[in-house]
Order: sequence, then structure tokens, then C-alpha cells
Amino acid sequence: MTYCVGMKLDRGIVFMADTRTNAGVDNVSAFRKLFSWEVPGERTLTVMTAGNLATSQSVVSILDESIRAGADTPSVFKAPSMFRVAQLVGRTLRDTISASAVPGAAPGVKDDGDSVSRFQASMIIGGQIREESPGLFMIYPEGNFVEAAEDTPFFQLGETKYGKPILSRAYKPDLSFEDAVKLLIVSFDSTIKSNLSVGMPLDLQIHVADTLRLGHSLRFDERNEYFRTISRGWSDAIELAFDSLPDFEFP
Amino acid sequence: MTYCVGMKLDRGIVFMADTRTNAGVDNVSAFRKLFSWEVPGERTLTVMTAGNLATSQSVVSILDESIRAGADTPSVFKAPSMFRVAQLVGRTLRDTISASAVPGAAPGVKDDGDSVSRFQASMIIGGQIREESPGLFMIYPEGNFVEAAEDTPFFQLGETKYGKPILSRAYKPDLSFEDAVKLLIVSFDSTIKSNLSVGMPLDLQIHVADTLRLGHSLRFDERNEYFRTISRGWSDAIELAFDSLPDFEFP
Repeated sequence: MTYCVGMKLDRGIVFMADTRTNAGVDNVSAFRKLFSWEVPGERTLTVMTAGNLATSQSVVSILDESIRAGADTPSVFKAPSMFRVAQLVGRTLRDTISASAVPGAAPGVKDDGDSVSRFQASMIIGGQIREESPGLFMIYPEGNFVEAAEDTPFFQLGETKYGKPILSRAYKPDLSFEDAVKLLIVSFDSTIKSNLSVGMPLDLQIHVADTLRLGHSLRFDERNEYFRTISRGWSDAIELAFDSLPDFEFP
Repeated sequence: MTYCVGMKLDRGIVFMADTRTNAGVDNVSAFRKLFSWEVPGERTLTVMTAGNLATSQSVVSILDESIRAGADTPSVFKAPSMFRVAQLVGRTLRDTISASAVPGAAPGVKDDGDSVSRFQASMIIGGQIREESPGLFMIYPEGNFVEAAEDTPFFQLGETKYGKPILSRAYKPDLSFEDAVKLLIVSFDSTIKSNLSVGMPLDLQIHVADTLRLGHSLRFDERNEYFRTISRGWSDAIELAFDSLPDFEFP
């Protein structure tokens, strides 16, 4: 599993991803799932991935290679709009998944016994191209995608449920980047505490709107002082919040 | 979907269940999922169900019928221990599921495309029999079961993830029944806010340890003043809790 959140704010976009990958509980590794590119002054782009690691890495490598390839190769650096970038990434993702499928092979089986394509992956991409406003997209394994808008200002990938209630309650479009990071840390902490397959370290990438340069890029590991403070502090704050609610009385 | 929680406390057991059932988003009804029986002074029993409604109702009817049947029919009123009660309920559940299966029929398909037996159901049962301490069990569709103990003092059925972080953080074995109800209301409110397939009204059943009589039995609907206070108050309390955490600063 995985947990990634891309969050659109008035001030720009914030991306956070965990780094745990596992093939069974005894085969756990850390791999980066957040990748960024920039053409300073012209465009910024961040991609986060969930799902089959071979598929995700392959898609990222193809995107990366196409950037350095000749003028004839379509690439996320040449796409004229964020919509076209999303289309290109979606197509690359779909092609990679179908190229991996072995004809006649049985589908994979998830931990809970349900079946799923072994090569499935989803992505969140976001960024900005000069003369456009920032865009944030959720890309499905089929290659199609949806864009974040006012009513759905953030996307989650992977193990999304544990960390969602706090996002829904505390998100506001005018959050500062500092408050957005705090909110994401709380959401990731709740998820990590509840699901073994989501784990530290966490990667953070900020896109400040209209700068057309990548903003802060940070990694939080287990020893990170701020993460530890929030993780401990949130448990205490929740207990206080709970105590502050009026008590129930049996009728 | 469904959301049910059975929670073991030092003082007894608390059960809460929603009442929404749906077969598609345009076929939504309210059905009771929490059922209780008692032999005053001798035993108390509460069952909560999740999964196929025909299976659940059938199991409950069979249990109910066997109670009123002659002395030769095994029933939850005659089982000599909570372990035997769990075994009987598990066997009834398994038999009901396999009796419904049509030979050669394709399995059902969940909303997310995964396959599952159309007739699957799970249950939480709990109660107390004279000369035993209270027992709480989670019963699987296969008929086997696990018992709640110190390390796992509560069981959830159905849409469990949204409401779990608050349970994990605020549960303590020495909670009063009033605080346990408050905690469950918060957990159910988070789940109802996040998932359409879990809905009001909510049924509550209390078992006070060693009384061997059913305790308070209540139903909370949308107009319930306490539920509304908590639902509104929790959003505000969470925002305050969030604000109380130290702010992040970029290095």
C-alpha cells in the first residue's frame, strides 16, 4: 500500500507521499514515490505514484527519458498545457500496464483475497505551465483522469480512509503552506498508526503558484523533531478535544 | 455497507450499529442490525450483523426460533458458555451462507469491481452467562471466530476505517458507559460524514457486567439533540485541537 495526498490551495499545490512498498509483510522496502521536474520560469511538475512498483518506476523513467530525448519525442516538457501533460502521463501509464500483462495469466490477488491486475498503478500529477493557473490531476490505471476543482480540492492515493476525516474537516483553500504541511502530517500520522503498509520517511514537495519554480522539497523521517511533536501532540489534543465535548447522559 | 462497533469495557459491553442497507445507491433502506435477548438473572446476548441482509435476517430468525423451540433444539439460551454461543451462531451463519449459494452461479461483484460471495455476512456477538465474565466475539462468514481480549478490546464491522483512529486514540478500558457512548457517536459521525452507505438512525445497546439483564437500549436519529451537538461540536473541537498544535516552519 501507499498513502499520497495532492492538495490544491489558493497559494499553490502541496504534495506528500510515503515511501513504503511491500510485497507481503516480510518484503518491505522504502522507495521514493514523489518525483518533480522544472523548467525554471516556464513550468513545474510533480508526480506521485501508487500501485505496482515496476509499473510506477517504468512510467517515471519513460517520462524522464522523453524529457531528455530529441525534439520529435512528445514529453511533459513540450506538452502545451497541464491537460495535455495529464493526457500524456495517462497514456504512458495505460501503455505500461498493458505491456506488462502476460496473455492468459491469472490476475493478482490482494491481501484480502480480492483480485486485481498485478500491474495496476494510479498517479497524482500537478504543476503549472506559464500563462496557465496551477492544475492537479488524478490519473487512473485506464489512462483517463479528473482534475481537482473547488469542490474536490485534494486527491488521495492508496490507503485513503484513515487520514480522510481530518482532511475533510480542517482543509480550507486559504491555508498557508505551513498549515497545510501540519494538516498533512496529522493525516499521515493517523494513517501510519492504523496501517502497517504505509510508512516513513515522507516526501514533501511545495509548488508556490506563479513562481514557476519548484518550492520547498523536504523529507521527514522517524527522527524528525516536528513529526514527533505532532504525532505525540495530536493524541493529546484529540483527547482534550474529546473531553471538551458535552457528556452523554442516559435518558 | 454497514458500521457496527462492539466495545468491551471494565464495566461491561457497549454495542452500536447503523441501520442503512443498500443494494445500489438508488435502493437504500433502513433495517435494524442489532438484536438482543435476555433470560433475566441468567444470560444476556446481543448480536450485530453486516453483509447480505437476507443472510443476516435469516440467521437472526433461526436463532430466535430455536429459543422458542422445544428442549431438544440447541439454542443460544441453552448453550452452556459464551464460547458455545459463538460456536452455535458461527455454525448457523456458515450454514445459512452455504444454503443460499446457487451451484455454478458467478460470485457477486462489489462496487469497486472486486468479487465476493453474494451471501456473505459477518457478526459481532457479546453478552454474559451466569458464573462467566462478559464475552465479545467477532464471527466470520466461515463460522469461525475470535474473542476480544485486553489487546483488542473492540471489534468493528463494515466500513471500519474512517472511524478507527478516534477509537484507537480515545478508548480506555475504564471508560464510563457515558464516555463510551460519546466516543462511539464521534466514531460513527466521522464514518457517516465520509461514506454514504452508512446512515442514521443508530442503535445502541448497553450490557452492564454482572447484572445479567439488558441495560439501556436507545435509538439515535437525525433529530437527536445529543448526536447533533456532538457532530457540530466535534468539527469545532478538531479545528481547535489542530490550531493548538505547534506550527510548522520551513527550515
